[in-house]
This record gives sequence, structure tokens and C-alpha cells, in this order.
Amino acid sequence: MSKTEQQWIEAISGWVPPTDTSVLVGIGDDAAVFESRGLNVATTDTLVEGVHFDLSYCLPEEVGHKALAVNLSDIAAMAARPSQALISLVLPAARAESFVPGFYAGLSILARENGVNIIGGNLSRASVTAPMVVSVTLLGETERPVLRSGAKVGDVVFLIGDVGCAAAGLALLRSEGRKAIGGPFKDLVRAQLRPEAQTSAVPLIEAAAHALIDVSDGLASELYHLSEGSRMAFEIDTTHLGLGSDLLSAAQVLGQDPLHWALYGGEDYALLGTAPAEAVAQWRIPGLKTIGTVRQGQGVWIGSTTPRKRLARGGHDHFEAP
Amino acid sequence: MSKTEQQWIEAISGWVPPTDTSVLVGIGDDAAVFESRGLNVATTDTLVEGVHFDLSYCLPEEVGHKALAVNLSDIAAMAARPSQALISLVLPAARAESFVPGFYAGLSILARENGVNIIGGNLSRASVTAPMVVSVTLLGETERPVLRSGAKVGDVVFLIGDVGCAAAGLALLRSEGRKAIGGPFKDLVRAQLRPEAQTSAVPLIEAAAHALIDVSDGLASELYHLSEGSRMAFEIDTTHLGLGSDLLSAAQVLGQDPLHWALYGGEDYALLGTAPAEAVAQWRIPGLKTIGTVRQGQGVWIGSTTPRKRLARGGHDHFEAP
Repeated sequence: MSKTEQQWIEAISGWVPPTDTSVLVGIGDDAAVFESRGLNVATTDTLVEGVHFDLSYCLPEEVGHKALAVNLSDIAAMAARPSQALISLVLPAARAESFVPGFYAGLSILARENGVNIIGGNLSRASVTAPMVVSVTLLGETERPVLRSGAKVGDVVFLIGDVGCAAAGLALLRSEGRKAIGGPFKDLVRAQLRPEAQTSAVPLIEAAAHALIDVSDGLASELYHLSEGSRMAFEIDTTHLGLGSDLLSAAQVLGQDPLHWALYGGEDYALLGTAPAEAVAQWRIPGLKTIGTVRQGQGVWIGSTTPRKRLARGGHDHFEAP
Repeated sequence: MSKTEQQWIEAISGWVPPTDTSVLVGIGDDAAVFESRGLNVATTDTLVEGVHFDLSYCLPEEVGHKALAVNLSDIAAMAARPSQALISLVLPAARAESFVPGFYAGLSILARENGVNIIGGNLSRASVTAPMVVSVTLLGETERPVLRSGAKVGDVVFLIGDVGCAAAGLALLRSEGRKAIGGPFKDLVRAQLRPEAQTSAVPLIEAAAHALIDVSDGLASELYHLSEGSRMAFEIDTTHLGLGSDLLSAAQVLGQDPLHWALYGGEDYALLGTAPAEAVAQWRIPGLKTIGTVRQGQGVWIGSTTPRKRLARGGHDHFEAP
């Protein structure tokens, strides 16, 4: 006998008790009630089965983890602290028992690690053949948001986290299925299945960063967002991206270009930003790379070539016509 | 040539400029930034094509209106004022041109009427056969939320708005299709296609209401939520529901029971609550009915019968097994 919506809501509210005292009313009333300090920040991101995840090689726990992680990355990219989340799930009723508990297990572990309360949500049935849809709205708080538009002439361009690994992991999963998880490139596969937002870097960079964005749609595309948002030229040295030896090896095995993965692969959830060079030099952050410089002008340029070349925009557009 | 996700985001942000100064950063950065006053309130609700709406008799404008209206109703049910909304749309790319502009037109008219800023969202493609999914997260503000749990002995049970009309409208649309809109029962059809949240009643009732809920899943089910949340018995007189003559006529035409629509139909978005009788007597609110009394005990009872009968719970569960 399947659970009703009401029974699921009761089960879920037992799995995700609030982690702090900011929540006055959690799951179970018409809406949640919570306190916030400073400015509020809000973002929403959606994962669609068959587009953003595939249960033939993803566990429900991994979908839950990823659904929150991609939103944590957006909140980090504002230099904000995450606080409250609302979760919407759409799925065929017959698939709920095998998906919902694992999904919430993966999501709630990450929520607790990041001080996020699950304060509400929605569970809707869909027809038997409909793909699952997972939407997370994540709220946060900040005293001083860092926008895409603040890059200044002379700033260095910094990158926190690896790029290209998630795309490599996806290629490996598509080629080998879930056994890729235990294979020689397991760190790449993990980057795809369990992406980690760079939330712990935020307190270290928030005071000095002038511009900030997360690398969800591919590094090249995000560089253009910063460049256009700030009306500045970005000069990038692609030899400073720090592509790891496992990325290079996997590219060779699969006959792919590792730099293409790094620039256009997407789903990396690294943080990309600009700040004064003297500030960045003080940061002690694992995975920090300085990859370029902000100049007067426009466009994104590969600075290490003569004559310099414009970086192709590319990008990972979830909505391109098929 | 279809628009990309980025082009849609740019188009949408032009359609829905912020309506007040609380929004510091709107659509276009990694997350929105806004100020709030008092306590924050948050809710999310999802409409699934084929489950909650059917484009064979709904316009995209009506889906947009309804997607926001159902959330406005939840915020009103906390005695809160709506403030900021985030919209997630999942649909096949080929259907975007015919749906997205109308959807946002319907949604943004209602948003402006209610002082709601559209501060963010998401647009995801799905496979050609996937149903559309619309999720709205709505935030609000209040100084004193009114919960489901506050009903007191001796309170009167009040209802603001009509019940049963949305269910009747759905039955008419399923029977006659969109031509029902111009027919003799057009007000019932309108209740289904363009539900109105009782937001304007909130300032009038917030000081006196002890308990509050919105009637989204059927009056009987919501009465049980209040009764169980407040640990009180509710005694209801169903002759006070104020079922209109058009509802009674439509029921006769379709061979249905109007009281069943009123108690179990759902999607009415009326406000149901309890407050002291002397306060309710002062209210001048269109559509206000006093339908019962709060007693010591438990359960929901039909008080006008001797011996009194327990009201069957029923309800409109979106997640019952098929």
C-alpha cells in the first residue's frame, strides 16, 4: 500500500528536523516561518530525470545530494551563507517508495553539514511515464553580496575548485555505467555524482572579492558572464587551470580533449571571481588557482598566445532546441 | 529558431521588473538579494500538466495565474503579506514559445496586483513527451503568523470565500471543454481556471484570528487539519456553507451532489479559521460565513443533526496511489 501525500509529508518532516532556532514553524502548516539576519538571498534550481540525472547510474541519495549542492553553489557565489530550503518533488506514485527515502537521506546529510533547514516542500504525482523533477529553492543571508558586476581593472581572476572533472565523470559513466565508480577514475566520477559546492571558501574570500560566480555551465560561459556583467575584458591563461593528471589520462582513454571539458563541460560548481592580487596572495584555500587578469575593454581572451585569441563562448545551455 | 535558456531568462526579466525597492538584485545573478521586515514566511507549490492543469481547456495565462494564486493562498493562510517569488518551469523546448510568454503574462498581472516581485527562477527542458511542471516558491512577511494550532474553545469557525465552485467548474470543463467558459455556469468555471486567493481579507482578520488554513484540499480535510492541529473538536453546520444557486443548478445538470463538491472538491482557496464570535461579528468581508463552533474534544462533527454525526474526512490527495 502506497503512502498518501500527507503520510509522505509526515515521514519527511521526521527525517529533516530543523538544525537551528531560526525556524519558528517548519513543515506541516500552510507555510514555514523563520527569522533572518542581514540581507536575504534566494535561488532555485531544478534537476530533470533524463536531462540532469539518470537513475541507471545515479542513486537516489546522489540526486538528493546534487539537488542541494547546485543550490549551495549559487548561494556561495553571492558570498552568502545558506539557511533554509524548500523541496519540490514530482514523480510517478509507484516510484516514490524506491526514491523518496534515499533522496531525502542524501539531501539531509548535506543540509546538516551546511546548517540548512528543510522548512517546506511539495510532493506531486505525475503519470507513470513522466520523468522525475526535483526543484530546490535555497535561501541564505549575507551582509555584503558579491555580484557578477564588480570586477575591477587589475584584479586577478581566481578559480576555487576543479573544472572539467564533472564532464569527464559523466563521459565515464555514459561509457562504463556505474562500475566506473570503483574504477581508476573514481574521483572524476565522484565529481559528477556528488559535486561539492565551495561553501567553505566563502568566509575566506567575502571581504576581498570584487566579483563572483559559480561555474555551473562551463568555465568559458561563466567568464563571459563576469566580463559582460562587469564591462571588463578578461585575459585568461589556460595553462593555469591546474588540470589534474587523472583528467588528462581519462581524456586520453576516451579520446577527448581535457581542455574542452574544462572550458565547456559544466557542472563543476567551482567558484570563479576577481579580487586584488595582494588579497588573493594571502588566501590559503585548497584548490585555489589564479588564472588571469581583468583589463579595460571587453571580451574573454587567451592571454598566453601572441596574437591573443578570443575564447569561444560555448557553454552548457540546458534549453537549447533539440 | 528557438530561444536558448539565457535568451529566455533575459526576456522574462524584462517582463517582470521588480515592483518595489525591497529587491536589491533581481533575476540575472547567481541568486537574488532582497530585504525583509518582520518574520519571513515561505511556501512552495507545484502544478503538473495532466494532474493539476490541462492545456486542452486552460490557457497558459490561466496556468500562470493559478500557479501564483495557490501560493498566495498559502501565504494568506499564515496571515502574512506576500513579497518575493521564484518560478521554476520544466517543459519540452519545442513548447516554450507557445507557453512561456502567456504563462508569465498571467502570473505577472497577479504578482503586480499583490505587490509580489519575481526575483528568480529556472527554465529546464524536458523530453518531448514529458508533462510540463510549474513550481512557484513564494515568500512573505508577517509580524504575527496565525497557525493551524491556535483554535480556542468557544471560537466560531469562519469561512471566507466559496467552496465547491472550483470542483463544479472542473466537472463542467471535463464535460463541455472550453466552451463551458461562456456558458450559464461561467462563474463556476472561472473559479477553477482563475482561482482568487483571499489576500485582501488578511489585514481585516489578522489581529483576531486564532487559527487559519486555506481550503486547497477540500473543506472536510482542512477542518480536520485545524481540529487535529489545535486538539479541539469542531462542530459544523453544513447549512451555513452558503452554497450558491449556480452551484446547486450545475450539480443538478451534472447529476452530482453539491455538498460533496463543497466538502471534498478542493482547489477553492477559501480561508478557513477560528476567532472569537464578537470579533467575527465586526468583520465586513464579502463571502464571510460562520459555519460552526470550536468545542473541547476531538473530531469534526455535523452539529445540526441529532444525534450528531462525524464528518467523513475524504479529501483531495494529490499523491494517492493510482
